[in-house]
Amino acid sequence: MAIRPGPNQYGKAESRVVRIYRDTPRHQIRDLNVSSALRGRFEDAHISGDRGDVLPTDTQKNTAFAFAKEKGVDAIEDFALALADRFIDATPAADGAKVEVEEYARDRIPVDGSGHDHAFVRTGGGTRTTAVNVDGRGDDRVAHVISGIKDLTVLKSTGSEFFGYLKDEYTTLPETHDRILATSLVARWRYDAAFIARGEVDWDKSYESVLALLLQRFAEIHSLALQQTLHGMGESVLEQHPEVAEIKFSAPNKHHFLVDLAPFGLENPGEVFIAADRPYGLIEASVIRDEATEAGNARLGLPGFC
Amino acid sequence: MAIRPGPNQYGKAESRVVRIYRDTPRHQIRDLNVSSALRGRFEDAHISGDRGDVLPTDTQKNTAFAFAKEKGVDAIEDFALALADRFIDATPAADGAKVEVEEYARDRIPVDGSGHDHAFVRTGGGTRTTAVNVDGRGDDRVAHVISGIKDLTVLKSTGSEFFGYLKDEYTTLPETHDRILATSLVARWRYDAAFIARGEVDWDKSYESVLALLLQRFAEIHSLALQQTLHGMGESVLEQHPEVAEIKFSAPNKHHFLVDLAPFGLENPGEVFIAADRPYGLIEASVIRDEATEAGNARLGLPGFC
Amino acid sequence: MAIRPGPNQYGKAESRVVRIYRDTPRHQIRDLNVSSALRGRFEDAHISGDRGDVLPTDTQKNTAFAFAKEKGVDAIEDFALALADRFIDATPAADGAKVEVEEYARDRIPVDGSGHDHAFVRTGGGTRTTAVNVDGRGDDRVAHVISGIKDLTVLKSTGSEFFGYLKDEYTTLPETHDRILATSLVARWRYDAAFIARGEVDWDKSYESVLALLLQRFAEIHSLALQQTLHGMGESVLEQHPEVAEIKFSAPNKHHFLVDLAPFGLENPGEVFIAADRPYGLIEASVIRDEATEAGNARLGLPGFC
Amino acid sequence: MAIRPGPNQYGKAESRVVRIYRDTPRHQIRDLNVSSALRGRFEDAHISGDRGDVLPTDTQKNTAFAFAKEKGVDAIEDFALALADRFIDATPAADGAKVEVEEYARDRIPVDGSGHDHAFVRTGGGTRTTAVNVDGRGDDRVAHVISGIKDLTVLKSTGSEFFGYLKDEYTTLPETHDRILATSLVARWRYDAAFIARGEVDWDKSYESVLALLLQRFAEIHSLALQQTLHGMGESVLEQHPEVAEIKFSAPNKHHFLVDLAPFGLENPGEVFIAADRPYGLIEASVIRDEATEAGNARLGLPGFC
Repeated sequence: MAIRPGPNQYGKAESRVVRIYRDTPRHQIRDLNVSSALRGRFEDAHISGDRGDVLPTDTQKNTAFAFAKEKGVDAIEDFALALADRFIDATPAADGAKVEVEEYARDRIPVDGSGHDHAFVRTGGGTRTTAVNVDGRGDDRVAHVISGIKDLTVLKSTGSEFFGYLKDEYTTLPETHDRILATSLVARWRYDAAFIARGEVDWDKSYESVLALLLQRFAEIHSLALQQTLHGMGESVLEQHPEVAEIKFSAPNKHHFLVDLAPFGLENPGEVFIAADRPYGLIEASVIRDEATEAGNARLGLPGFC
Repeated sequence: MAIRPGPNQYGKAESRVVRIYRDTPRHQIRDLNVSSALRGRFEDAHISGDRGDVLPTDTQKNTAFAFAKEKGVDAIEDFALALADRFIDATPAADGAKVEVEEYARDRIPVDGSGHDHAFVRTGGGTRTTAVNVDGRGDDRVAHVISGIKDLTVLKSTGSEFFGYLKDEYTTLPETHDRILATSLVARWRYDAAFIARGEVDWDKSYESVLALLLQRFAEIHSLALQQTLHGMGESVLEQHPEVAEIKFSAPNKHHFLVDLAPFGLENPGEVFIAADRPYGLIEASVIRDEATEAGNARLGLPGFC
Repeated sequence: MAIRPGPNQYGKAESRVVRIYRDTPRHQIRDLNVSSALRGRFEDAHISGDRGDVLPTDTQKNTAFAFAKEKGVDAIEDFALALADRFIDATPAADGAKVEVEEYARDRIPVDGSGHDHAFVRTGGGTRTTAVNVDGRGDDRVAHVISGIKDLTVLKSTGSEFFGYLKDEYTTLPETHDRILATSLVARWRYDAAFIARGEVDWDKSYESVLALLLQRFAEIHSLALQQTLHGMGESVLEQHPEVAEIKFSAPNKHHFLVDLAPFGLENPGEVFIAADRPYGLIEASVIRDEATEAGNARLGLPGFC
Repeated sequence: MAIRPGPNQYGKAESRVVRIYRDTPRHQIRDLNVSSALRGRFEDAHISGDRGDVLPTDTQKNTAFAFAKEKGVDAIEDFALALADRFIDATPAADGAKVEVEEYARDRIPVDGSGHDHAFVRTGGGTRTTAVNVDGRGDDRVAHVISGIKDLTVLKSTGSEFFGYLKDEYTTLPETHDRILATSLVARWRYDAAFIARGEVDWDKSYESVLALLLQRFAEIHSLALQQTLHGMGESVLEQHPEVAEIKFSAPNKHHFLVDLAPFGLENPGEVFIAADRPYGLIEASVIRDEATEAGNARLGLPGFC
């Protein structure tokens, strides 16, 4: 009987790296949450507890903070790639490294009509994310980048229907031609490895553009199902962004139930709703481009459906 | 030996009331979290389980949703006051009622340069709150309103010092003349009962103005202690808002520790920080106006220091 | 116009102090969350930013860890009192100090029928709490202790009714003679200052006994209202515990709604429920002993209704 | 350019199903959180918004509650399998279904030395989970079951070392031969499809035994690395449970840092620690049996590393 270690990874999660640029009185701030993980030939640590191959998670944390100074923090994708490469270089037993970064957006506090030099307020509108996977080193190096946004809470107060669905003996849901559609969106888009290899992606610009497009399409599409809304959003992203190979969504359907006001002698033509917590629908969808490069290990170690 | 019921209150917490105004194609949305509580002569329910005096929490919930239609939702303070009065009217044994409302801010989703008619994205920058307490009915009615904001996450990357503090044998903290000052602010300001009685408060306008002032003063004040920053913020609010009798703050000092990069041969002149979760400083402060009307039951049933 | 600082307090919240006793191979563990706050004559810090009177929150944290070694951690009430006294002694401007401690219970991991010497698993069944307030020093010292439990999630599957309540035009709730009663209880009981002054309270024993009694009475009392259940629980505690002056409860009524299975041709005689999150009833009740010593500042700076 | 839907799934998440058995005065309770998802040929819903193939998430929820009555709730694995089969039967376009169930453990409240008939308290010690994936129907049906536990918070106060690790220029971690080892464990074990097909698994008995073994081995193994502890735990499970094909762990290394008490003239020989929140190590490991049946779609739609 052969019992042996299977797939594994290890690293330091959620180092809260805050980088201030103060070269001029007008400071810049990058407010990050950094997680890293290594995978590879670490059987000795698992079987005998020999850590000779193991770069400690504490060292991974130190490197993240040191790189915030040494390399600086520009686009989080570049920061994550630099860390992943470093971890592979420093760890001979590592076959690959994953680095995930979240960035919390901040606005300057308005004072007398303009933004303050060094005072900031955290904004909503979702959290930017990236998850980088690097396989190998030197000529064999392959870099994967999946960027995204999470906690993007959006709502349409009309322009959403749901009817004509499959029915069985457990069906009680009434059909509707006007409902609230609301979700707290997670979107993750995979950049085409060929574009990455050629250095052709402007991360910040691409992020801003994809995000604006996701919002716009959510607003514009007359929804017949959350699936169709998500597909339409993703399709537009792929049409307008050749550098994006694939996009995946995880969208809780945050139910807003029309409240029955009839017992109180009141009509309720789509005006008063109760927002429910649980249960919620959970729609997960993806849109892919056929001719894009293969995903390979891009999603290795990431949450979510395959 | 006399063992008897002491102070008590009961109600329905966290009804998520969403009100859509759709009289024109350009919808409006008010997204609320409503909690109510009644206090008074409910000893029978406590001692014998007789509920004849008890307006059920379910009815309180129903009323909140019905009022969203019947009365509409304009300023959350007016909505809360209407509910509190209703609960007292409907419940002879009630001496008073407390209604708390949170409102989640939403922006219109930008499409082609302008905001969409019926698609919204939730924004950050804190959550607006109000807590209304009404005592009595008819000529004896007294209304209290404490409005505020919570989860207002602000940060200054410089302009904050901490030195010259009391030292003892357990002191290890080094003095600093340049640190990050960050907090997730809760502010609650009590409106002067005389202004409320005269109907002189424009709730929305007052809220917007107080919030802008809090942000501005946080940015402007060179901080020698978080206490002094909070006091300066509150002082400005009271100076510019005669309708505000008092303001209270609860401000976690969200520590950002300068990372020691010396082991890696790097300097760190205020550039790389680690944001810590726990423990955190917790500074609670208030600023009051001497000639303001007394608080009375304004804070009854509210969390926080007295 | 006089604008001035009002009530205030400051301190270090949520220091996670873990104390291991390892004098023998059979280790003991105390796993605490410690928060402290000072109040007093700190106007200079608020008005001018002068911190000469301020014992930093960092020092408060240091003291908590140092005392875990110097004084040890026995009953959390004693630990909290020792810290509060220390903070008052070390801070001439302090008039009082509040120290709150939570303790996470752990069982030994069972191995071959007995508990392991140094391996532990965290148990449920609620978190023990204490909140100590000390006013003054020397002969003027007054110590208050409010101990309790939180997150005690209990449920009765029958033995709970709700009928005969006040009705109005917003009432839709049907009466019931058999429902699920469930709550996540917070209970806080104030020890009589006279008993504290005479050193007559065995904190650990009192806690265990009160907790057992609360559970037993919750189980035994046939409930006509959550208020009546809470009152009966509190009454028993005061009857059997002369050292307890008062007990307060905050009890969310965690609704379990009977699911309508009739559309599927099924009966549902109290068998299938949906547990709801929000909204929830929130019942807050207290039971007091008339001849007990006055509360004074016992509840100063604590959350909850007065 | 071909842009098309990729992998997708949809369903209802987190239906809180509570089932009471009251055939005798001694009630039984099963307290569940049920999530389901369907995958298959749902392109029409994505592309055109045609929902004719879509069994609504609302119907999935209804079915979960109806089955709690019709089929009853015995082992959560059986309940999940019954639901998954039902969803596939009711949905011609579905190729597969995933059903996840969490169960919250409850003890009877002790009254006079024995457990009460219908009063329960929620216990800690982790939450039981299962995730079932069924592919196909009829003769092509394949059922996968991955059961587990989460939020199992365990700690060793000694018997853990960490030394001899790989070092680089960012290493500052000191080696240690005695540290606290603590984690909040997630374990998920996959049952061998052959055992499932033959109906040879006693789910409840297997769960209880695996859980006891995980705890025991965590306690017993002298730890040289968290990886080695996890491997040893998993190895024992596979050795003693032929029905288990594979086990995966996700284990945050919840750091407990020895506090430096030297500034206060105190020694700290492993007695006083500060428990930290973030960052944390995150060790993910698996142990597999070579000759076990292949995983196939067992992990489809599940979180975690592949």
